[in-house]
Amino acid sequence: MEHSSTANFVSNANTTDNAGITKVTGIILQARKAQEASYILAGASLELRNSALTAIADGLEDEVYVIIKANAVDMENAQKSPMLDRLMLNKERIFDIAAAVRKIIELPDVLHVVDEEWQRPNGLKIAKKRVPFGLIGIIYEARPNVTADAAALCIKSGNSVMLRGGSEAINSNKAIVQIMKKALEKVGLPTECIELVEDTSRETATEMMKLNQYIDVLIPRGGAGLISTVVNNATIPVIQTGTGVCHTYIDESADIQMALNILINAKCSRPSVCNACETLLVHKSLEQSFLTQALAALEERGVKIVWGDYDVEFNDLIISVAVVEGLDEAIAHINKYGSKHSECIVTSNDSNAHKFLQLVDAAAVYVNASTRFTDGFEFGFGAEIGISNQKLHARGPMGLRELTTTKYIIVGEGQVR
Amino acid sequence: MEHSSTANFVSNANTTDNAGITKVTGIILQARKAQEASYILAGASLELRNSALTAIADGLEDEVYVIIKANAVDMENAQKSPMLDRLMLNKERIFDIAAAVRKIIELPDVLHVVDEEWQRPNGLKIAKKRVPFGLIGIIYEARPNVTADAAALCIKSGNSVMLRGGSEAINSNKAIVQIMKKALEKVGLPTECIELVEDTSRETATEMMKLNQYIDVLIPRGGAGLISTVVNNATIPVIQTGTGVCHTYIDESADIQMALNILINAKCSRPSVCNACETLLVHKSLEQSFLTQALAALEERGVKIVWGDYDVEFNDLIISVAVVEGLDEAIAHINKYGSKHSECIVTSNDSNAHKFLQLVDAAAVYVNASTRFTDGFEFGFGAEIGISNQKLHARGPMGLRELTTTKYIIVGEGQVR
Repeated sequence: MEHSSTANFVSNANTTDNAGITKVTGIILQARKAQEASYILAGASLELRNSALTAIADGLEDEVYVIIKANAVDMENAQKSPMLDRLMLNKERIFDIAAAVRKIIELPDVLHVVDEEWQRPNGLKIAKKRVPFGLIGIIYEARPNVTADAAALCIKSGNSVMLRGGSEAINSNKAIVQIMKKALEKVGLPTECIELVEDTSRETATEMMKLNQYIDVLIPRGGAGLISTVVNNATIPVIQTGTGVCHTYIDESADIQMALNILINAKCSRPSVCNACETLLVHKSLEQSFLTQALAALEERGVKIVWGDYDVEFNDLIISVAVVEGLDEAIAHINKYGSKHSECIVTSNDSNAHKFLQLVDAAAVYVNASTRFTDGFEFGFGAEIGISNQKLHARGPMGLRELTTTKYIIVGEGQVR
Repeated sequence: MEHSSTANFVSNANTTDNAGITKVTGIILQARKAQEASYILAGASLELRNSALTAIADGLEDEVYVIIKANAVDMENAQKSPMLDRLMLNKERIFDIAAAVRKIIELPDVLHVVDEEWQRPNGLKIAKKRVPFGLIGIIYEARPNVTADAAALCIKSGNSVMLRGGSEAINSNKAIVQIMKKALEKVGLPTECIELVEDTSRETATEMMKLNQYIDVLIPRGGAGLISTVVNNATIPVIQTGTGVCHTYIDESADIQMALNILINAKCSRPSVCNACETLLVHKSLEQSFLTQALAALEERGVKIVWGDYDVEFNDLIISVAVVEGLDEAIAHINKYGSKHSECIVTSNDSNAHKFLQLVDAAAVYVNASTRFTDGFEFGFGAEIGISNQKLHARGPMGLRELTTTKYIIVGEGQVR
């Protein structure tokens, strides 16, 4: 089926074109079934949810060669792609994926916790209880490990999941989902708790982003392009994750050696990730002392220095640098160019530290520590589904608790208003 | 300025048309200034925020005739509108608005509360602190009381607010915002903490819904049409409020008198609001007994009975009725047609009550009490900005706490990863 443009398709979602109907019906049906399955999953005990995860991990290990075979087809098809390494699965990587699923089993349950409960003067008993969202949509790119990882986090938190990965990984994803569905069946949960969108066309993705009746929340995982496509097209509530234009500001009173350590760690330890430093801001009084040393140390590690491009997430051994008049200019620069992810001040001045913590608008604000710590494991939450840099619902590393919502339970004896 | 269509305008947001530039620049500039003001407001003490609210309430009372005069222009322009009563302001209504602002002063502070705090094995101290969103956008319809009410809740919770009311109320809204800005100035807060979009064209509203760089969250307040326009057009995160297709299910074991009381209260006490009952579901065993009495009682109160239209929010003295085979069908009906707002079962069977609470997917689920209790004051939260029937961030009545987000504050001594 051909469409002249996405916009055209969107405005004709319920097209009478025969092929179109089949396609649209397919994804709507899948979503409806996944939603229905979510009501059953929401009532599943922790034991049952954990046994599903064990069966998934066992299945991934037992059928490792099935996955490798499917992955080989993807690798063959993707020969000219620069993403080849991200796409590749071998026995070691698949066992790592299974191990990550087993780690999620160990995490404490987040469901059916009563956050608050109280009684009103009229006798009504009100409780605010933590419940799953229902159906979570995950839209992601090449890495097939996300398929198992995201599904495991959703199942553990009582949510059905609708996965839409990239076309490059479709064969690997189909194999992994097949194994996971078998595991669900084995423990007696509906196989529709995990659904994969097999049609990886752009039209189907856009269609999925508008299934408000069935999907409760969409979480895109991938680069800035994917995230902005989802934000711009989705009518379902979205949690934005990932984009990190993070700053390290070296204040006048900074311990120079500490500042160097933190800067080098934030920039060089893993430059491709979202909590890595992209911009160094330096107080003007440190131009001769710290900055000279810092630039030499960065260059020694192969980091390219640029004096501009302050809104760019390099995800690479590149750093933008600016000299600022002082704390106020540093804060203004961060609030202007930052992506509200992770920001650091190195200082020994308590009042400057306090001001930075107060006025910088970001998910995680650091005094004298590397921004690389913004991570579910480093914060002590365990596996995360992403790092939110929006302010609605969840901010920073999103663990299991952030995959739940609440429900008010009100019990009366006939009260009317 | 004329546009051939909204869609055309949207794709040409940065049009080079002269009139266009002026319009677009106007709203962007306003949003930018409101965002800058939000950083100052975020640091304002409770005392200062409360004194702003006192000055606002005083101003509304002192300048009551200025507001009435402006409102008279709106009333004159709207002579043929059915919304005339909603639009009308008189001395009593304005004093009620001021009194509502004073009630917000009495509410406890929700800012700078540390929700959790812990130390990691590496010595990092992490605290999760409650902070304002920043800039909240409110898009609403005719009632000018929302202007003061929403602004007061935003200021109390440390947020700047950008208000976009309906064109019918523009003169009233301008007068109210002018008074509120004077009050902000009087206590030393930036007047840009409260901004009104004076151009009430559809294009400007659409433009506002895409100002992701400045506005952190959008809250539409109004009818289903307004809400779906915002959900479909906004790229800023939206909190959906208001739509209520609420059910009252009378189970086999219900106390008939209690069931009648609850039903009549839920349907008739204020049919125009979102927590009113729209659909009565009755267990088939009660067709002769309860249902006959219930229909007579409803008709006696002028309620029109319909046997269908299950997805309609009547907001009127109309009720849809269905007889169901039992609890499972009732739950399935609610999850299919409900708007996930407030749902009630009347029963004396504990296990049915439990199943209903567990499986019905809604913000508030009741056993033996009227759905009319879903309300900030009835829950004990005080004034609310709306009742969320989505699952992200806030569900049910949204008070001051729901107008905040969190920030991780991490303090180290040079830790690197």
